Order: sequence, then structure tokens, then C-alpha cells
Amino acid sequence: MDQQQFRKYGHELVDWLADYMQEVENYPVVSTAKPGEIKSRIPSSPPSAKEPMENILTDFRNLILPGMTHWQHPGWFAYFPANNSPPSVLAELLTAGLGAQCMIWQTSPAAAELEEAVMEWLQQMLALPEGMAGCIQDTASTATLCALLTAREKATGYESNRIGLQMPLTVYASEETHSSIEKGVKIAGFGSRALQPVATDDHFAMVPRELEKQIARDRENGLHPCCVVATIGTTSSTAIDPLEDIGRICRRHNIWLHVDAAFAGTAAILPEKRAILNGIEYADSFVFNPHKWMLTNFDCSAYFVRDPGALIQTFEIHPEYLKTGSDAEVKNYRDWGLQLGRRFRALKLWFVIRSYGVEGLRAMVREHLRLAQLFAAWLKDDARFETMAPVSLSLVCFRLNDGRPEPKLQELNAELLRRVNATGKVYVTHTALKGKYVLRMMVGQRTTAERHVQSAWEIIREKTQELLAGE
Amino acid sequence: MDQQQFRKYGHELVDWLADYMQEVENYPVVSTAKPGEIKSRIPSSPPSAKEPMENILTDFRNLILPGMTHWQHPGWFAYFPANNSPPSVLAELLTAGLGAQCMIWQTSPAAAELEEAVMEWLQQMLALPEGMAGCIQDTASTATLCALLTAREKATGYESNRIGLQMPLTVYASEETHSSIEKGVKIAGFGSRALQPVATDDHFAMVPRELEKQIARDRENGLHPCCVVATIGTTSSTAIDPLEDIGRICRRHNIWLHVDAAFAGTAAILPEKRAILNGIEYADSFVFNPHKWMLTNFDCSAYFVRDPGALIQTFEIHPEYLKTGSDAEVKNYRDWGLQLGRRFRALKLWFVIRSYGVEGLRAMVREHLRLAQLFAAWLKDDARFETMAPVSLSLVCFRLNDGRPEPKLQELNAELLRRVNATGKVYVTHTALKGKYVLRMMVGQRTTAERHVQSAWEIIREKTQELLAGE
Repeated sequence: MDQQQFRKYGHELVDWLADYMQEVENYPVVSTAKPGEIKSRIPSSPPSAKEPMENILTDFRNLILPGMTHWQHPGWFAYFPANNSPPSVLAELLTAGLGAQCMIWQTSPAAAELEEAVMEWLQQMLALPEGMAGCIQDTASTATLCALLTAREKATGYESNRIGLQMPLTVYASEETHSSIEKGVKIAGFGSRALQPVATDDHFAMVPRELEKQIARDRENGLHPCCVVATIGTTSSTAIDPLEDIGRICRRHNIWLHVDAAFAGTAAILPEKRAILNGIEYADSFVFNPHKWMLTNFDCSAYFVRDPGALIQTFEIHPEYLKTGSDAEVKNYRDWGLQLGRRFRALKLWFVIRSYGVEGLRAMVREHLRLAQLFAAWLKDDARFETMAPVSLSLVCFRLNDGRPEPKLQELNAELLRRVNATGKVYVTHTALKGKYVLRMMVGQRTTAERHVQSAWEIIREKTQELLAGE
Repeated sequence: MDQQQFRKYGHELVDWLADYMQEVENYPVVSTAKPGEIKSRIPSSPPSAKEPMENILTDFRNLILPGMTHWQHPGWFAYFPANNSPPSVLAELLTAGLGAQCMIWQTSPAAAELEEAVMEWLQQMLALPEGMAGCIQDTASTATLCALLTAREKATGYESNRIGLQMPLTVYASEETHSSIEKGVKIAGFGSRALQPVATDDHFAMVPRELEKQIARDRENGLHPCCVVATIGTTSSTAIDPLEDIGRICRRHNIWLHVDAAFAGTAAILPEKRAILNGIEYADSFVFNPHKWMLTNFDCSAYFVRDPGALIQTFEIHPEYLKTGSDAEVKNYRDWGLQLGRRFRALKLWFVIRSYGVEGLRAMVREHLRLAQLFAAWLKDDARFETMAPVSLSLVCFRLNDGRPEPKLQELNAELLRRVNATGKVYVTHTALKGKYVLRMMVGQRTTAERHVQSAWEIIREKTQELLAGE
């Protein structure tokens, strides 16, 4: 494909995407494809000769598109969002077109320096402590692994990197913490038994005195408390762990504090919500994902540390073939994480923050918070439903409860969920809270407006009526 | 920014990129920006109000672009390439516009099934053993870490994931192996002292009998040999470790064999070069990067394993909030690697393989091999230079040698490199081979034609003459 064809098909795809953004609402949110259906229609061998782009794009529309679940659909109330936005997509186009691999400063000085600059912007937007330094990671899974590894190294005087982990280090997180914490604990060689789940209160937030008790007990048993992961906005219910109390405990016991605010961090750009990060001055590391709620294409995870030297000491390797004349004067972000290779991810953050402005991003978050409260109020007025967790941000956890026993309630709500999602108009997911099956209504898609939340509520009521009547 | 503006600026950027592809040759390959220069021109605080896209794009052109090192420049002879291509850029645009997060099958069935299909295509293209299964990782660093972790778990009966690494496991790689191996060994908790560098021969390839000796010695010392990393195409000289001999040793001693062919793997699509993978039937895992030499935008690393069950058992975690009704019937690739979140990377591979066809990709690789041989022949005819390693693929390692002592030779060649790169026409990098400072002429950029290699050779000769005359 030459430049002229690139131009032609590029224009075609831009137009197609502009239409898609407009029309995505008309697609079923979740693909109705059956397992194996798409693969069965893809030739089992690669073509020997080149194929015209027309054919590829036709197949894209006829074969791939019906197999997509549409994360940018305004009826997306599932998981957490992974929002893109028009300026972010444009930046991704440029990133792909430039095709720079940003492993070190010299291989793309603008990428390295723009990353430093936009991380400082985010630091200000969230009012993170001065002196923290940030870099972009692919996902919060990776950022949390970086935190665990740096905590491991600091706790062992950087000896684990050399001789392996020879001490029984322990890690603490609430029982509501994300699965990536356990995954990181396994990868970093702590072993999952080193992960001590801390009890949560009625609001699903970590109980600091339980944390302190466990630390004391582990110390007595000859274990070495190494790291606490506090979650600001848990996946199941956006519970907010009490950072100040946890932070003071960590400080007192000289334990690394990692704060995982993957989804909720974006809310801290609102002055009226910044309190969710009270106590962040105790954090050794902090992660939140602009690729969730800050309109920046997946992947883009913002990772901040108090001591970049410790991070670099954990990861730095300097083979001859990567040495450059400027190494002493610049930041080489390859030493700030796991991967050597790095995409130019700062560009899309820069496009997004400038295109919306901080006030524009705040307005979007405020609207999502308002819509979630609205939905919660409707729920409250309908005696068939109960709210299962505080609506601290824009997630509403609820269930249908007509008084039948718990296992039957689970079946009832799972069936309700199935029927609601089968409409193709909305996508809601579930979780478990203290053993109870719960529906999660997550309001956070960029294009979700009041009418979409209203429509979701109508669908939920309609399917509830059908379900209760039909039994 | 609404859809109409997206359309407008999308078209503008497509045109700009089409021009850029044509004109990139006119830019200096390596940015001439000074450390700190770009950041000093970026406002230190984010804008409160939104800014018009015109301003952002103007800044992109005036501020960011001069700070880019141009990886898609035909004068790119540095490191390894990170090639993009027009169809790959178009696919990246679609991936960004769809904005799907492909962590599990249900959140994007087409992404999961297309990934499975294109991995099977690659498997056929490289004639990998039947029964291997592949998935896309971000980078070879990550893929190798996955291999080390799976090897660790298999060697310890999946107990390290639970109790940490309690046995002294050892890992073997040639002394020419990539830095990511040491990084992975540290991250996975082996400790860097567990990594045993194996001596190389005159061609910088691992000496199998040295490997076997070390394994025997380590066994005697109570260590547990766990994993061998063989490199097909080392970073410094594209040396090819003898896979068959290494594989037989691994099989005999029941040691995991990981094969790192990050750059060179693409060459195996040529029937006449497939021999570089002879012995691959012994491999437990194999990685190569379509984002290097197969025209697929960074990041896209193809990771194959013989036993997907072992990989999944290493990484699987199944929290309630990620359970879906189709889990028993489908591949959920979140369990095939470190990160939970995943981009739709299969799309660009599909676009590339279909747009070029296998024969089109072969033609490109063959031309690079031819050009490297041409360059090597010119070098051979000029008595001032010596070739420092076999030209097994498309990398030529050489230096200027006028007989002065080694430390002075290093200075001489470093100065030659500086002057060659200062022209802005080409970008060549260096390495060390058995302690000697060596220049690396890597021919692998998609748009590099004979005239570019010829021009590089002219520049090298001209700067050599200047340098020797001016001393």
C-alpha cells in the first residue's frame, strides 16, 4: 500500500469512525456472537499473495464488527469504562503514524519530555504531593507490580534482585482489593500466602485497626510486613479505604504504601471529591488510569512514586548497546518499569487534557456522579430493590430482593441481569459483596446522558416485572 | 470535540501522515533537541479551559515533531527497527476508534478469536511445531518474563505462586543474551545470581557443551536448573544459538527451553532461512516481535507456548466480577499474561498479513538480507574496515581499524559514529563484542532501498577520511 492508497483508505476510515461514533448507540452493546463463530469464518491459512484493502475493510465490517462488544456505547454500564474520545483517537493515529519506539530519551526526546510534562499536569490536577514523579505504564496491573517489586527491593536492601527473595515478606490489602494485587504478589515471588486480606467494614472499606493487628501478629510470627495496598474505589463497589489512618500505620511501621485508584483517581480532579485522596502524602506509590475515566484511549496508566531513585534502582540495566551520550542528563523511562519498549502514550494525554481543559474533564465527571445519584434515588423509591453499597462515586450496587432466601436471590438477580443485557441496549455486570450476588450499574461512559440512564432504569423495571410475573 | 470536528481533523491528519511518510527522508533521523529543551516550552500547568485543535496541532508540528527521532526514516540503521506500515497504521486507527478493552472473550469476541486465528497464521508462516498455541504480548520483555514465570511454576509444582520461591533455581543464557532476560530473572524472584551466562564461540553463539557443563556443576552444587533461554539473533550481532543441541540438552535434563527470536524470528518466514529455527520442536516457549521486522506497529509481540495449560495455571485468577457465562467455552487471554487489560492488537496483524501477503513480506525480508550482504561486501573491499561478526541476517557489525591499540580504536570508532550520525541522514548505533567497541549497521527499515544503504556507505567513508586526515 503506497501513500496515495493510505490517503484514500485513511479518509474512508475517518469517515467511517465519525459515523460509528454517532451510530454506536444503535449496535447491541454486547456482541451476540457465539463462541467459535467468528474464527470459523476466518481462513485457516494466511494469504500467499496480497489482498486489496477493499476486501479487508469489507471483512472488517461484516465479520469483525458484529463480533465487537462496544465499549464506547452510551449504554455501557459494565465493569469500569475504558473511554476513548475524538482527540485521543486522533493522537493515537499520530502515534501509530510516527511509529516511534520510546524506550530511551534519544530514540524520541519529545516523547520522554512530553511524558514528564503531562505527568506533572496530572500531579497538579489531582493535587498529588510535591516531589512525586510520574511515568506512564500500560495498565494498573503493571504499575502495581512495579510497586510491589520496588517495595520488595527496598525492604531487602535491593538484595532480592541479586539473590532472590530470602525473607518472608508480607503484603496487605483489603479483602475487596483487585485481583491484580494477588497476581502481582505471585509474579514478584512473594507467594500468594504472603498476601494478607484485611477485613472491611460495612462500607467495604479496609478497617485500619484490623490492619494494625495483623501487622503486629505477623511481626510476632517472624514475618516482615513489606507493603500495604490501599484501594481508592474498589472494583466491586468503589469503596474508599481510609488512607490517612492506613498511611499513619504504614509510616509508623516503615511499610511501603501503594495506592490503587485505577478507576476513582480521575474523580480527584474535582475539588469537592479530592478528599478521597486525603492521606496521599503517606503514599510511596500511586496509580490511576486515565484510560478508564479520563477519555484517554486504553492503554494509559499513570504511575507516581515518591522516590524515583528506588524505582530506577529496582529496574535499571544498562547494556552497552543501549548507552547514549545523553544518559547522564535525561530520563530514560525504560528504567521506570518492566518493558524495554515503550509507545508514545503521552501524546494522547496531552491532546485530551488540552482539548477538554481541566474544567471540561471536571464537568464530565460531575455529570456522571449526578446521574449515578439519580439512578440511586429511583432505586430507593422502588421497594423491590435494595442498594447494596454506598454510592461514593458513580457506581450503584443493587439487587432485586423480594425476601426469598439468599441462593434463590442470586438466581433471581442473575436471571434479571441476563434479561436486561439480552435487550442489547445496555450492558450491566455483577459482582459479589460479602457473599451476596450484586448487580453493578456503572455510570462512566463518555457519551452516557440522562436519557440513557433513564432507559436503563426502564429496562430494569420492565424485566423485573416480566421476571416476577412469569415465575 | 464532536464528530464533525473529528472528521475534519481526522482528514487533516491522514493527509499530514501521508505526506510525512513521503517526506520523512528529509528530516534528520535523530532529533537534534537538547535535553530539557522541549519540556521548557510546554506550559508547566494544564489549561483550565479547552483549547482549539488548531493550536494543539500547531504545537505538535512546531514543538513535538522536531523532538522526534524518526524510526520510519529509510536511513534508520540503528538498534533493531520498529517498523510500521500503512495498513498497520489504518488498523491502529480502527483499534483506537473502537476503543475495546479485550481482557476477556465476552468484552470483545472478535478480538479474542481474531487473535487466535492470526496466531495460527504466524505459526504456519514460521513453521512452528503443531500443537503450539500463541497469544499477543506487548513486548518480548514481557513474553520472556511469562516464560520465566511458567518455568518457575512448573519446576516447583506451581508452589512458588503460593509460597514464594523456596528452591535455588537457575537460568541459563548466553553471555550475549538480551538485558530483558536479567530483568525478568530479577522480577520473577530468581535473583540475578541465578542467571548463569554461558560462554559463546567465535560467532557469539552459545556453546552447548559449556551449557551442559554448567548444568552438571550446578546440579552437583545443589542448585536446580530451571530454564534455558536460547537467542536466535542476539541484539549485538544477530548470533544464532544452536537450538538443536541446546534443545536436546534441555530435554535430557527436563529444563524449560525458551527461545527469544525477537528480531530474527521474522526471517524464518523465508524457506531458505527457516533453518535458524531448526530445533524449535524442543522449545517450551518462543517469542518474536512482528513489531520489529513484520511491518506491524509497536507494540505486538507474538508469544507461543507448547503447553497453554501451564501458562494459564501460572496466571489465572478468577474473581466474581470477571466471571461470564461463556468462560468454559472460550479463550480468555487475560490469563495468558501479566496484564488484565488488553488492546485489540490482532487487528493490525490481520491487516498487515493480508495487505502484503506472505510473499510480500518475504520479498521485503529478502531485500534487506541482500542489502546487508551488499554493504558487507563493500566493507570487505575497503582495507580500513573489518567485519566483526558473521552477517547471519541483515545486521553488519564492523569497525574502523588502522592498527592502533584497543582503547584508541574505541575512541576512533565512537568519534566516527558521532560524525556519521551528526549528518542527520543516517542513524547507526554501537555495541560491544567480546570487549571490543563495534558499530552496528542494521538494515531492516521498511522503506530502506539500495540507494539509502549506498548513501550510508558514502557517509561512512567520507567521515572516515575526514577523521583520519584531521587527526
